[in-house]
Amino acid sequence: MPGQFALYGSPIATAVDRVRLTLAEGQFTDFDFVQLNLWKQEHKTAEFLERHPHGRVPVLTTPEGVNIYESRAIARYLTARYNFPLVPPASDLLATARFEQAVSSEASYFDSPSGKLAAQSFIFPLFGKKPNEAIVAEAREELAAYFDICESQFAKHGNKFMAGDLFTLADIFYVPLIARMVERGNGDLIEKRPNMKAWWERCLARPATGKFVEGIKFDEMYKAIQSQRASM
Amino acid sequence: MPGQFALYGSPIATAVDRVRLTLAEGQFTDFDFVQLNLWKQEHKTAEFLERHPHGRVPVLTTPEGVNIYESRAIARYLTARYNFPLVPPASDLLATARFEQAVSSEASYFDSPSGKLAAQSFIFPLFGKKPNEAIVAEAREELAAYFDICESQFAKHGNKFMAGDLFTLADIFYVPLIARMVERGNGDLIEKRPNMKAWWERCLARPATGKFVEGIKFDEMYKAIQSQRASM
Repeated sequence: MPGQFALYGSPIATAVDRVRLTLAEGQFTDFDFVQLNLWKQEHKTAEFLERHPHGRVPVLTTPEGVNIYESRAIARYLTARYNFPLVPPASDLLATARFEQAVSSEASYFDSPSGKLAAQSFIFPLFGKKPNEAIVAEAREELAAYFDICESQFAKHGNKFMAGDLFTLADIFYVPLIARMVERGNGDLIEKRPNMKAWWERCLARPATGKFVEGIKFDEMYKAIQSQRASM
Repeated sequence: MPGQFALYGSPIATAVDRVRLTLAEGQFTDFDFVQLNLWKQEHKTAEFLERHPHGRVPVLTTPEGVNIYESRAIARYLTARYNFPLVPPASDLLATARFEQAVSSEASYFDSPSGKLAAQSFIFPLFGKKPNEAIVAEAREELAAYFDICESQFAKHGNKFMAGDLFTLADIFYVPLIARMVERGNGDLIEKRPNMKAWWERCLARPATGKFVEGIKFDEMYKAIQSQRASM
């Protein structure tokens, strides 16, 4: 019996993790995960480009054949469709504005440097490639400046989570890349800032998020990739 | 009599234009525009950093003193608060998913290269600085690849606007930077793609958007800046 939709992805893609964590936090399991082999370029086939014109993951495909891409858009869609308690009520305009401000800040200031850091320190080494230390240093510096601002905002507003006192998609969107930072020796960027550290611990105290972060293991991914490459 | 809120900005900031165009499309004029002098660093004062911790524009301040930043978050807030017909109905989950996909695509693929192109070809020359042609070429190449995908998606889905047949914030978010491209000799990126050209013409046919684009004049901004600098 097929699930309520198919989610196309790969275990090494952090954008896919945004959607998987949203589903885990929503305690939703009735879907099919279709794993693409990215090093066999299965995301660049003509068939897959019909699902996602950029040839990226994730894609969500409904039983009617509607494809939705962009991880944050998929996470919002799932939250609305299955009523996950991961956004403020739409009727609370200021809470929603603060949520949108937090989501936009993550995309504007965090996503690019943390994505670069993850590429250099996590993805490249998975494939036996050394990180470019200059890019690592630059990304860390950019993140430090951004986290300083987050730190002062937590102090100013006293909020528990990124968009207020409610854990929302705005927190979820940070988790996959921070998990990789922590796993690869860049956790000091969080640990040495008390409010950021307290926020991260509140995230980890949530069963679904704690379990998800626990599952991000470089060594296990490395072994899985080596065995898959050997079998090609 | 003060307006319903204050909008802090500058005429040369494209992010501010996203909000101003949203207001113009919503035919909303009851607000106070507070112009900051960016070359006097008025966006980096301690007072302004209380409004926006990154020291950027725009910021919307409500009469109760609540500050909202991030242009796309402000545009969404205004649309919800004043019922502008610029988003699909929330009850239409698939239309909303498509809208969120379009908004996320703009932020992920368009904003960065078009922002670089605007900096080099519009902002720098406003201050008498020459563009770096290598950065211009790279940004144009990245935009060309993205617009090729947009072009094929318009052909595939037959939609009139970025998120479907409704003109939405997803279109508005493109306008300020495309207006600057067109004004500074990079309009070929749109003009030579028939579906993109037709989309742009549909945007320009809207009175508020047409008038807004008409108002983006490099020569006028250049003169205004020269006279302001001379009076410093």
